[in-house]
Amino acid sequence: MKIKAGIVGATGYAGAELVRILLGHPDAEIAAISSVSFEGQKLSDVYPAYYGLCDLVCGTQEEVVEQSDVIFAAVPHGLSQELAVQCVQAGKAFIDLGADFRLKDEAAYQKWYNGSFQYPELHEQAVYGLPELFREEIRGKKVIANPGCYTTAAPLALAPALKEGLISSEGMIADCKSGATGAGRKPAQNTHFPDLNEGFSAYKVAAHRHTPEMEQTLSRVCGKQVHMTFVPHLLPINRGILATCYARLNSGVTEADIRDAYSRMYGKEYFIRLLPQGKVADVKNVRCSNFCDISLHVDTETGTLIAISAIDNMGKGAAGQAVQNMNLSFGVEEQAGLKMVPPAF
Amino acid sequence: MKIKAGIVGATGYAGAELVRILLGHPDAEIAAISSVSFEGQKLSDVYPAYYGLCDLVCGTQEEVVEQSDVIFAAVPHGLSQELAVQCVQAGKAFIDLGADFRLKDEAAYQKWYNGSFQYPELHEQAVYGLPELFREEIRGKKVIANPGCYTTAAPLALAPALKEGLISSEGMIADCKSGATGAGRKPAQNTHFPDLNEGFSAYKVAAHRHTPEMEQTLSRVCGKQVHMTFVPHLLPINRGILATCYARLNSGVTEADIRDAYSRMYGKEYFIRLLPQGKVADVKNVRCSNFCDISLHVDTETGTLIAISAIDNMGKGAAGQAVQNMNLSFGVEEQAGLKMVPPAF
Amino acid sequence: MKIKAGIVGATGYAGAELVRILLGHPDAEIAAISSVSFEGQKLSDVYPAYYGLCDLVCGTQEEVVEQSDVIFAAVPHGLSQELAVQCVQAGKAFIDLGADFRLKDEAAYQKWYNGSFQYPELHEQAVYGLPELFREEIRGKKVIANPGCYTTAAPLALAPALKEGLISSEGMIADCKSGATGAGRKPAQNTHFPDLNEGFSAYKVAAHRHTPEMEQTLSRVCGKQVHMTFVPHLLPINRGILATCYARLNSGVTEADIRDAYSRMYGKEYFIRLLPQGKVADVKNVRCSNFCDISLHVDTETGTLIAISAIDNMGKGAAGQAVQNMNLSFGVEEQAGLKMVPPAF
Amino acid sequence: MKIKAGIVGATGYAGAELVRILLGHPDAEIAAISSVSFEGQKLSDVYPAYYGLCDLVCGTQEEVVEQSDVIFAAVPHGLSQELAVQCVQAGKAFIDLGADFRLKDEAAYQKWYNGSFQYPELHEQAVYGLPELFREEIRGKKVIANPGCYTTAAPLALAPALKEGLISSEGMIADCKSGATGAGRKPAQNTHFPDLNEGFSAYKVAAHRHTPEMEQTLSRVCGKQVHMTFVPHLLPINRGILATCYARLNSGVTEADIRDAYSRMYGKEYFIRLLPQGKVADVKNVRCSNFCDISLHVDTETGTLIAISAIDNMGKGAAGQAVQNMNLSFGVEEQAGLKMVPPAF
Repeated sequence: MKIKAGIVGATGYAGAELVRILLGHPDAEIAAISSVSFEGQKLSDVYPAYYGLCDLVCGTQEEVVEQSDVIFAAVPHGLSQELAVQCVQAGKAFIDLGADFRLKDEAAYQKWYNGSFQYPELHEQAVYGLPELFREEIRGKKVIANPGCYTTAAPLALAPALKEGLISSEGMIADCKSGATGAGRKPAQNTHFPDLNEGFSAYKVAAHRHTPEMEQTLSRVCGKQVHMTFVPHLLPINRGILATCYARLNSGVTEADIRDAYSRMYGKEYFIRLLPQGKVADVKNVRCSNFCDISLHVDTETGTLIAISAIDNMGKGAAGQAVQNMNLSFGVEEQAGLKMVPPAF
Repeated sequence: MKIKAGIVGATGYAGAELVRILLGHPDAEIAAISSVSFEGQKLSDVYPAYYGLCDLVCGTQEEVVEQSDVIFAAVPHGLSQELAVQCVQAGKAFIDLGADFRLKDEAAYQKWYNGSFQYPELHEQAVYGLPELFREEIRGKKVIANPGCYTTAAPLALAPALKEGLISSEGMIADCKSGATGAGRKPAQNTHFPDLNEGFSAYKVAAHRHTPEMEQTLSRVCGKQVHMTFVPHLLPINRGILATCYARLNSGVTEADIRDAYSRMYGKEYFIRLLPQGKVADVKNVRCSNFCDISLHVDTETGTLIAISAIDNMGKGAAGQAVQNMNLSFGVEEQAGLKMVPPAF
Repeated sequence: MKIKAGIVGATGYAGAELVRILLGHPDAEIAAISSVSFEGQKLSDVYPAYYGLCDLVCGTQEEVVEQSDVIFAAVPHGLSQELAVQCVQAGKAFIDLGADFRLKDEAAYQKWYNGSFQYPELHEQAVYGLPELFREEIRGKKVIANPGCYTTAAPLALAPALKEGLISSEGMIADCKSGATGAGRKPAQNTHFPDLNEGFSAYKVAAHRHTPEMEQTLSRVCGKQVHMTFVPHLLPINRGILATCYARLNSGVTEADIRDAYSRMYGKEYFIRLLPQGKVADVKNVRCSNFCDISLHVDTETGTLIAISAIDNMGKGAAGQAVQNMNLSFGVEEQAGLKMVPPAF
Repeated sequence: MKIKAGIVGATGYAGAELVRILLGHPDAEIAAISSVSFEGQKLSDVYPAYYGLCDLVCGTQEEVVEQSDVIFAAVPHGLSQELAVQCVQAGKAFIDLGADFRLKDEAAYQKWYNGSFQYPELHEQAVYGLPELFREEIRGKKVIANPGCYTTAAPLALAPALKEGLISSEGMIADCKSGATGAGRKPAQNTHFPDLNEGFSAYKVAAHRHTPEMEQTLSRVCGKQVHMTFVPHLLPINRGILATCYARLNSGVTEADIRDAYSRMYGKEYFIRLLPQGKVADVKNVRCSNFCDISLHVDTETGTLIAISAIDNMGKGAAGQAVQNMNLSFGVEEQAGLKMVPPAF
């Protein structure tokens, strides 16, 4: 008996990638999809790549909740809380690809998202779905906040060194670069082809709302409140996030110490590929997959750790990780449906 | 018991794509790979996307032949004949992604490839592996010439109309555009990033050696010798071929006649997606898949059929079709290993 | 005393390119610009590339007419006729980058643009600004219809052969490919970065409204009504149009005959570069310039002329040609302001 | 009487861009060009964009020295010293776009470039051609070391804050991203179109030989030896460098203090555009120009200055700056030939 999966907001990029992954999942099937913008239309009319493969018609949110065991919400920030309540009341699992349940601190949520916690008990119940750091919390849970893309890439790059006290908890910097799908499917000037193509710049410099989410994760990892500098950039490519993270090495720490720490923490993680010395993480190598490649570099001259992680912002940064969380929630194999090989070119 | 597949020339683009497909094939496994340029190195050192997923070491051609039930040859034109003999003598199946066995006319082969038929009996035995046109010939065969990329896309776009006599067999034009992987993995000036990026041009205008191969296929389809004009262009994208094909409609033929003919011929083909009226084939929608999307358009003002086909040059145009041929050769499900959903973006 | 140039619709792509060209024009200066969308804002706020170089504030259409000797209209189709009247009444020259004055046949205009000729005498007066074909008509004129991008590229590629009777006037095909700026500055789904990038397809197949304009030009060239097939495609690059044009060679015509005809007609044209045998026109080589590169190819097997032209859709296909027309209108050197060297990469 | 300019290595990207700039220079003309790889061939055969505009034939290095007043050397590192001697002995000016004369410390040169100072007196004589920092040293000089691309972008971003003591001289980080032309014209695997396109990664992490050059410049600026961390990345675009630079603000320093310092130092610099608050530097806006756009951002939470600079790596990062240095050397207007407006798209 397969897990019946439903997607609210299936015509956004994250929703569409969920469809692609779930179509190949051995233990799940797509029960229903919805879309406000395209209600009544076939998904394959919106994404002709799926023609003949997923010709499901977009229905309503209510239909999705009713027909599914697990509901993935790929909707704009702020719309998930109401939906979460419906799911919980109906006894369904709920995995939110938006930000509504990510921050545990309501003040931070208010500051960065301009909203409030409407159902505090739901926020209590919600777990943060970054399995490589918090796996045991996620198993069997029914309200899961799927992390953002930047907030998956950067914390994974720094966590082992921070946890083992090899780097200072002050002065961490995440210089991140994202592909254009991260900005969503809706056309906008900065993602208009002639404007983005052959261009490259930062945006929301030190003012992106993923900052508090990163800090929350890393604070949990090291057991005290940390702050960091986060600068996102927009790349003229479709998929991928590269997080080039800088941290000050504590005195006496060697590259070998660093590599040992990462091996201890990630050595058995299927989805984290620690690259051997001399290799550098590249977004190209993780496209259309759930992998996070990490390469480690030490600048001995200045005593700086440079940890670089690469993920597919739509894979490990959104839909892939959401499916990984579904697997943990339902107790099926964690890698189920996620073993796709990234295309080499 | 899975089919043991071997790849000679695994580090070229077609070879690498074969690896990606075969890693997900339910009825086959990769037994051995070889590469002249990278002998002794891991495939994942050449293609870090495969790190941890295919760390096979490149061996020799001889090892591949010995350890495999079927040998895929992804080697430069001219090197396949000798390998084919070895395979046949060892009782192995042989699928050639190069051109050595595609042309039945030795004179044409000499003219366009500057070579001769060294083992005429092998050429007698070889079948042309374009399943949608010649499926029954391929089943169970052991020497299969896999078509070229352009020569898959353009003939599939024109075959039904030509076969049913709806278009003139004179004056056909294939204006084709290919992604850069079609030029191979070896760096060259015309595929150097700054030279190709933001550029677009034709090459080998009316002088590409896929021309006689297209003509051979279409001549077989309509039962008489045809000639056509073929102009390839190089696109600044990685994957895909779009073939915009023009033909003169015979008198009285309507768009409905055209659509009927294509439905009759392709209506049950899994890998050919006939797009509904109003849609236009796009290379984007078939990437990383074995699909061939076809859209049909009639210019009633000038009496012209415009049939547009889109394939992934590395999928249906190379590795995907080669696996489809393997499936036909070994009698397993024709779609096995080839049901991947194209990414929507 | 410099020509005072004004631009109505300066914040669209064609308007912005006009600014760039006019800033370097030795005999003209920008007197005023307007924009409905950005009235009151600096142009350099819309195009930061111009920061410090053109910080003019967008005013109203009326201000532009008042302050300028020549008004360039880069506005949506249908809005030019009223503006033209204002200019003519004020004794100003008017150069329309839109389509309102291009078609001489009102029925065709009605069919393709869904509008009517509101001031028939203006349409009488308007000349079609394709200097290499109709230069003498343009000199000193004050109402000039600047051709479209496709309708510059394709007719220039076929005109000499057609004029001299070397090709059939039936069965001509223009398979054209355009960069994304051709679709304008306004964000849309088909030019959203993730949708266009790594994609390629045709659109408005045999149904693009540039078709009657091409036919009008070529009919004038050969002295009788011609029809042709025109299929545009959208390229994932910013600038450029490549027109791959096909025509049936008349009996006995050789490649030398073709080359002679093109040399006779274009040999002294500064902006047309006839490429030597063996070279192929590439959009890369004409970017940011007013050049039209043409390469000629003959398929002797099928008796087909393949004439390929490349222009910058924003240069020779819009703003560059408009300035060329201004120069002809005002009697200054035809190449003035247009001698920029295309960047090599 | 125009300056006679010669280019040794005219067929590399920097050489070709020099040609483009010099063709439009009011006070200079190209006297001769040379190329080892293409001796005897026209430049326009190598770069068809220049067809009809610069059909000069590539001669020898000796011919260039003989026929020119100033020689630009765009040759691989290590080949300039011998050429410099020839130029100096012949009384010609010499501007080196390579690295041979950039580092004042021979030990550093040996470590990073594996070479020695063959003519120490030449190194004494050579000045470092970064006009915005060291203008007065350059005027009238005849041996000029043109800075590298990264080493122009990053130091310009940090210099004012460092000079005025607003940031710590420890812990500076330059996270830089370069377009593909920075890797040169010679095809290589990492710049092969299918490999770079849709990819993004760092390279030579904390091990790039521009590091000591940056440190040399910034040490001069602040009067003491500094070290910094430099990580370059390769962007899938043709032109441009974005340097995202991080530094620790000294206690009590405000964003206003920072902006004041930059205005004092750069307020009158034509080629440096300090962007207003709220804007972010983008490589798109400086393409094909000699501008350096700088945006300033302060992360008050962590006390970090983020200074972002954007240049065209072939413009201000190579050929443009070399022409600026020529202008200073010969006493003509510093902006001569360099007033081109960057294309907006």
